[in-house]
Amino acid sequence: MNTLDRQQVLKDPLYGYIHIDDVIIKKLIDTSLFQRLRRIRQLSGVQMVFHGAEHSRFTHSLGVYELAFRFLSVKELNETLDERSQLLFKTSALLHDIGHGAYSHAFEDVFKVDHEQIGARMITNRFEIRDILATVDKDFAKDVASIILKEGRFPIIEHLISSQIDIDRLDYLERDAYYTGTAYGHIDLDRLMRVMHIKDGKIIFSVSGIHAIENYLISRYHMYWQVYYHPVARAYEVILEKIYLRVKNLYLKDFEFKADIEPLKRLIENPNDLDSFIQIDDFFINGLISSFTKSKDDILKTLADDFLNRHIWKYIDDNKANQELINHIKATYDQQELEYFTAHKTVSNRAYQNDKADIGDQIDILLKDQSVSTLEEQSDIMNGLMLSGVKEDKKFFYRPL
Amino acid sequence: MNTLDRQQVLKDPLYGYIHIDDVIIKKLIDTSLFQRLRRIRQLSGVQMVFHGAEHSRFTHSLGVYELAFRFLSVKELNETLDERSQLLFKTSALLHDIGHGAYSHAFEDVFKVDHEQIGARMITNRFEIRDILATVDKDFAKDVASIILKEGRFPIIEHLISSQIDIDRLDYLERDAYYTGTAYGHIDLDRLMRVMHIKDGKIIFSVSGIHAIENYLISRYHMYWQVYYHPVARAYEVILEKIYLRVKNLYLKDFEFKADIEPLKRLIENPNDLDSFIQIDDFFINGLISSFTKSKDDILKTLADDFLNRHIWKYIDDNKANQELINHIKATYDQQELEYFTAHKTVSNRAYQNDKADIGDQIDILLKDQSVSTLEEQSDIMNGLMLSGVKEDKKFFYRPL
Amino acid sequence: MNTLDRQQVLKDPLYGYIHIDDVIIKKLIDTSLFQRLRRIRQLSGVQMVFHGAEHSRFTHSLGVYELAFRFLSVKELNETLDERSQLLFKTSALLHDIGHGAYSHAFEDVFKVDHEQIGARMITNRFEIRDILATVDKDFAKDVASIILKEGRFPIIEHLISSQIDIDRLDYLERDAYYTGTAYGHIDLDRLMRVMHIKDGKIIFSVSGIHAIENYLISRYHMYWQVYYHPVARAYEVILEKIYLRVKNLYLKDFEFKADIEPLKRLIENPNDLDSFIQIDDFFINGLISSFTKSKDDILKTLADDFLNRHIWKYIDDNKANQELINHIKATYDQQELEYFTAHKTVSNRAYQNDKADIGDQIDILLKDQSVSTLEEQSDIMNGLMLSGVKEDKKFFYRPL
Amino acid sequence: MNTLDRQQVLKDPLYGYIHIDDVIIKKLIDTSLFQRLRRIRQLSGVQMVFHGAEHSRFTHSLGVYELAFRFLSVKELNETLDERSQLLFKTSALLHDIGHGAYSHAFEDVFKVDHEQIGARMITNRFEIRDILATVDKDFAKDVASIILKEGRFPIIEHLISSQIDIDRLDYLERDAYYTGTAYGHIDLDRLMRVMHIKDGKIIFSVSGIHAIENYLISRYHMYWQVYYHPVARAYEVILEKIYLRVKNLYLKDFEFKADIEPLKRLIENPNDLDSFIQIDDFFINGLISSFTKSKDDILKTLADDFLNRHIWKYIDDNKANQELINHIKATYDQQELEYFTAHKTVSNRAYQNDKADIGDQIDILLKDQSVSTLEEQSDIMNGLMLSGVKEDKKFFYRPL
Repeated sequence: MNTLDRQQVLKDPLYGYIHIDDVIIKKLIDTSLFQRLRRIRQLSGVQMVFHGAEHSRFTHSLGVYELAFRFLSVKELNETLDERSQLLFKTSALLHDIGHGAYSHAFEDVFKVDHEQIGARMITNRFEIRDILATVDKDFAKDVASIILKEGRFPIIEHLISSQIDIDRLDYLERDAYYTGTAYGHIDLDRLMRVMHIKDGKIIFSVSGIHAIENYLISRYHMYWQVYYHPVARAYEVILEKIYLRVKNLYLKDFEFKADIEPLKRLIENPNDLDSFIQIDDFFINGLISSFTKSKDDILKTLADDFLNRHIWKYIDDNKANQELINHIKATYDQQELEYFTAHKTVSNRAYQNDKADIGDQIDILLKDQSVSTLEEQSDIMNGLMLSGVKEDKKFFYRPL
Repeated sequence: MNTLDRQQVLKDPLYGYIHIDDVIIKKLIDTSLFQRLRRIRQLSGVQMVFHGAEHSRFTHSLGVYELAFRFLSVKELNETLDERSQLLFKTSALLHDIGHGAYSHAFEDVFKVDHEQIGARMITNRFEIRDILATVDKDFAKDVASIILKEGRFPIIEHLISSQIDIDRLDYLERDAYYTGTAYGHIDLDRLMRVMHIKDGKIIFSVSGIHAIENYLISRYHMYWQVYYHPVARAYEVILEKIYLRVKNLYLKDFEFKADIEPLKRLIENPNDLDSFIQIDDFFINGLISSFTKSKDDILKTLADDFLNRHIWKYIDDNKANQELINHIKATYDQQELEYFTAHKTVSNRAYQNDKADIGDQIDILLKDQSVSTLEEQSDIMNGLMLSGVKEDKKFFYRPL
Repeated sequence: MNTLDRQQVLKDPLYGYIHIDDVIIKKLIDTSLFQRLRRIRQLSGVQMVFHGAEHSRFTHSLGVYELAFRFLSVKELNETLDERSQLLFKTSALLHDIGHGAYSHAFEDVFKVDHEQIGARMITNRFEIRDILATVDKDFAKDVASIILKEGRFPIIEHLISSQIDIDRLDYLERDAYYTGTAYGHIDLDRLMRVMHIKDGKIIFSVSGIHAIENYLISRYHMYWQVYYHPVARAYEVILEKIYLRVKNLYLKDFEFKADIEPLKRLIENPNDLDSFIQIDDFFINGLISSFTKSKDDILKTLADDFLNRHIWKYIDDNKANQELINHIKATYDQQELEYFTAHKTVSNRAYQNDKADIGDQIDILLKDQSVSTLEEQSDIMNGLMLSGVKEDKKFFYRPL
Repeated sequence: MNTLDRQQVLKDPLYGYIHIDDVIIKKLIDTSLFQRLRRIRQLSGVQMVFHGAEHSRFTHSLGVYELAFRFLSVKELNETLDERSQLLFKTSALLHDIGHGAYSHAFEDVFKVDHEQIGARMITNRFEIRDILATVDKDFAKDVASIILKEGRFPIIEHLISSQIDIDRLDYLERDAYYTGTAYGHIDLDRLMRVMHIKDGKIIFSVSGIHAIENYLISRYHMYWQVYYHPVARAYEVILEKIYLRVKNLYLKDFEFKADIEPLKRLIENPNDLDSFIQIDDFFINGLISSFTKSKDDILKTLADDFLNRHIWKYIDDNKANQELINHIKATYDQQELEYFTAHKTVSNRAYQNDKADIGDQIDILLKDQSVSTLEEQSDIMNGLMLSGVKEDKKFFYRPL
């Protein structure tokens, strides 16, 4: 397309270098919308437990882009995707998280926004990005948005960006392991790329790569249970969710905030207000929480104080044996307090299996005789994990110290 | 002292684990003043060039503490320092950067504050820290502050925390290399610890460790020139300095800010106002710069815009050959603009040698016959570096795109 | 015991340094019997597939010793074992493989020797080692031998050296991964040591370490299937076994060897002939095989040629579907050839679970309420692996190209 | 050329994978002459000090080949070399050490052979290799030999294989560091490749890569002084040299050897006897030394015993201060003993600078204005090292314990 005169590189601790050889990619990285991702940390609650993990969605997004760049060196993929599709793949990889806001999970729950919807609109509606993409062709922005929304129009690219084995997860599992310092789970990326094939318009892995796939899935399992579902990390997210909830409810009751919550107000009124959404980065939210420690509302003040000063909420298993204790604890709160100071949280025991499996929820395996099987058929470990998944979900009850 | 029932650990990507076995250390980590360091990035401008380096002074401070913990396993040191001195060493290591603010270097230049002075006062004056340290004994806080201020009362501990080879640098060189992804400069910490001795109340290294020391110094040299002095990174710091300067001058001219610059105002009035200083973290400054993009003052608006949207200022060598060009550029600005849109910056060619060499600016080497020599005497490489240092400083001229 | 004046260290690529602070250990390393392990590679057939894995049992033995050294820093273990027991542990760790010969597995099968029996006799009967150990006390050599033979007299030490999670495996899994370059399976040694406890005279792991244990078991699983059971690696071992078999049978039929097979002869006559056994290292066997390429016996000549010049035997699954093919292949050989040029090999699908589980074949888990459970009870993954183990063994049929 | 249907890979601990996509390369690896390199360790004496470094010239040769493969992805190089030249480059890289024998340095000194001459003759005269190369074209073997002999006919390829910065050294510095465990000196291969250019038929590096080059040179410096010149490692080589010398002298005096020294005899008679040379691998020499421990010649017996049982010779600085001591030691030996039991060894202080600098002994630097300078001009560190090189050589005097 618009090849750069000279390939540019950015130093990356995981991949050595991020390689940029297209003007489009370079320009997208320089937009304020993409630079904004520097101000949104990749792991919200988790960084409170794993202090090394202070990296942002900016860093992760560059990583996913680089994986797209590298996957395109796989001969079969390179030959299957024409030049436009290759750029589409790289662009979608770079922008796949563009719609993320601060502390997304809790935020999306309370304020009813969806980062993929928002990302798609940023790509098609904001001049800054739209005008760059329009230099490719008039449908390019629309097509990138379509991939973000997983509409199924570009199945191979969507599969590569979002499936059981995709470049999004491949980057974040390795990157989060690198920054947290959890040794588990080095993924053999070279091997996965070598065993990847395209058959009947679908991604498939040859049986000789089954150990690399197993290893990837086990890494994922461990990262989920040891890092992403760490109970203390989740305690932070519980408090944050309560803060968001209190702000929303106070606003709806016409509470007069001293802090400037303007963007939040507008977003409650109109969840489609992109301008407001864009302002809500980690800096904004943290500044807000900081100012809430002086709020006249005692609930908000307490929650903000718990969040900032590491009063980590305690949790116990939410099982039969603890019901009496839980009821006892709950009885110490009045009705309003109950809403803000207690929480029941469920971690699906299958979550690591299919948390993102909208497309391609099955991993296809190409046998030596060219017939197609599934990973579950071929892998003893995967089978074991599947069987184990039948067990019950894990439930926790959280409350302040 | 107040040993914890069970040693606690934090996962760290560099050292595997940070080991905490003293109640004092645990409590200090939990203070809001120490947690505040999470909101101050270790590398301000550098992270704009090396996207992976988003780590904070919090992470670095834990690392320096862990090195103190490990150094205390060196027999000679362990036997030289009594129990109180050991805790003094670990506490000072943990708190050595407690007085840092947002984007410290530019900030300190413009607002005339000093992070070591501030750190010392935080330790002796703020209840939160003072009360914890008072549980050791009544002089403990004062003694920690004395070490931070390098008053020379605890020469061995001061030497270990701040000298040519100190745990502060040992951590940040390795940590910054890890997060930036620059491969240069793995330091053989185990070896340095093995060859470290105490002689006549001073730290000394046996000659058998000379390669490990050379390697450390070369790593330092490379990190300075490739990372810390990276011209683009410094361009960001130049813009930031200009922003600070403009804010200060506008305030002194009674400009009416729309943004809440209250803490800055109070600090200009009284550089000793700790309450204000503490509020000025990266979140605060970034929020401020963000709001300045809508300022009525054109200069501030332009500077803020340059900073946030990656309009990286250009630089050229500030040498004879370029003087005509530089004068030509300068002539395009009026007097006021000159102050804010051009900058001359000097990088001392010796800077990597003695940027912090207040104490122990010489590295003593213990020869096999037990006599004492210096590194310069013993090391060909170091000698070469010293000779090379005679060359002129490097000067740059910066201005907007 | 006989502490060295100054701890000595050896540089090790896995652990940084091997630490030696006891005269006994230093002297044992310098014996010709221990140095002999330099001439016996750790991975016989495997190195033909993974070219990087050329390390010896010497290197591995030092590694196991270092792990013993480090495990002794675990407070509970350090307090449970008295000074003599600690030295017993370190000595047994160092010498656990002293009885290994060249290409042990095939050798032991054909010549009916057992490396643990031989190791025990080397320790108690050979002056070189016996005299060093006698300086501790008169029973010391006997006690080390008892541990090698797993007689159950020192249950904790035996458990640490040989069980489901032992320092032998912890070293070889990591070391073989390092030298082969297989990324799978970094083991979190620090964590395993932190969660290890002693309860009722048995090693037990606290439930908080379950992910580290799972990770270790998965690593083991992968190393077995990807490295140790690699079909090409095993093909080399099949050829080697046939060579040993042919030599033995030729000798029994009074064949006149041109090569010097004296030590083999004496060992056939007397499997207890230590002097002969000691001479049979990789250098000796490889020299022999090299000279066999000029043997007058065609079978021996062909086998030696196949081994040295990489005529790797082919294998097919030994299953129902292939029976006709296998019979067809076999029919092309006469009776004598059949014995030397075809082989049926079985890889037990459970092998990775209990290949060494003489002692402590179960991993005990200490729950938070201080009750004891088992890993299978507590771990979904382990459960899955166990269930998967019910499947049939894998069988292969090997023959020359 | 003869592209393989499917690229084949070998797992390598340094590079992940060795990539083979040409039939010629695959066939060459499988020759018995190349497989013979498995039986010749890369670091002879060094492995006695750094136990982890047991790797062979086989592993290193594959590594150098892989670097050739990767360097060919550098656009300028890829475009400069036509298809035949590219295969010539890869083949020469693979075979550059084919002429090495056991413990080469000492061997070559005593028996007056030269591994490059021998390698060249192996390539042009031995059917096994010659016939493979002849399938390319009739001059191919001759051209490969020409490159090994550095005749200057293929300057770019020779420069890449043997110069100040070449793929031979790039592999062995990294590989030896990996296997010894010496952390110093990770080389930024990607960066070196990115800054490499071809100008006027010569390799040149752009000034932006100067830190990567400095880092490589410093690594080299450290590896030489810490690993390759390690005095204990060199002590082993001294003993070995004395063994070779004694064997040669005994043979010339018609001593009747019990051991089979046939190949050595023939090589003494005719240094061009390839058949004999090929048999002399580490296995052969070690077997011989082992049998010498029972020799009737006392000198040979003592030397062999010292070598095998770690009676490492002591060394002292061979300087003025020690002359009296050295003379005193020498006086304790008779004339014949003197020759075999004492040695003066010199380590040139400049050795690390130009030990291999037949071609391209200068590193050319391409400045931003496209003019050409040298590394010494541009690098302060290199300048320092050069200056330091003016100092005197280091001399040692060795003798038995």
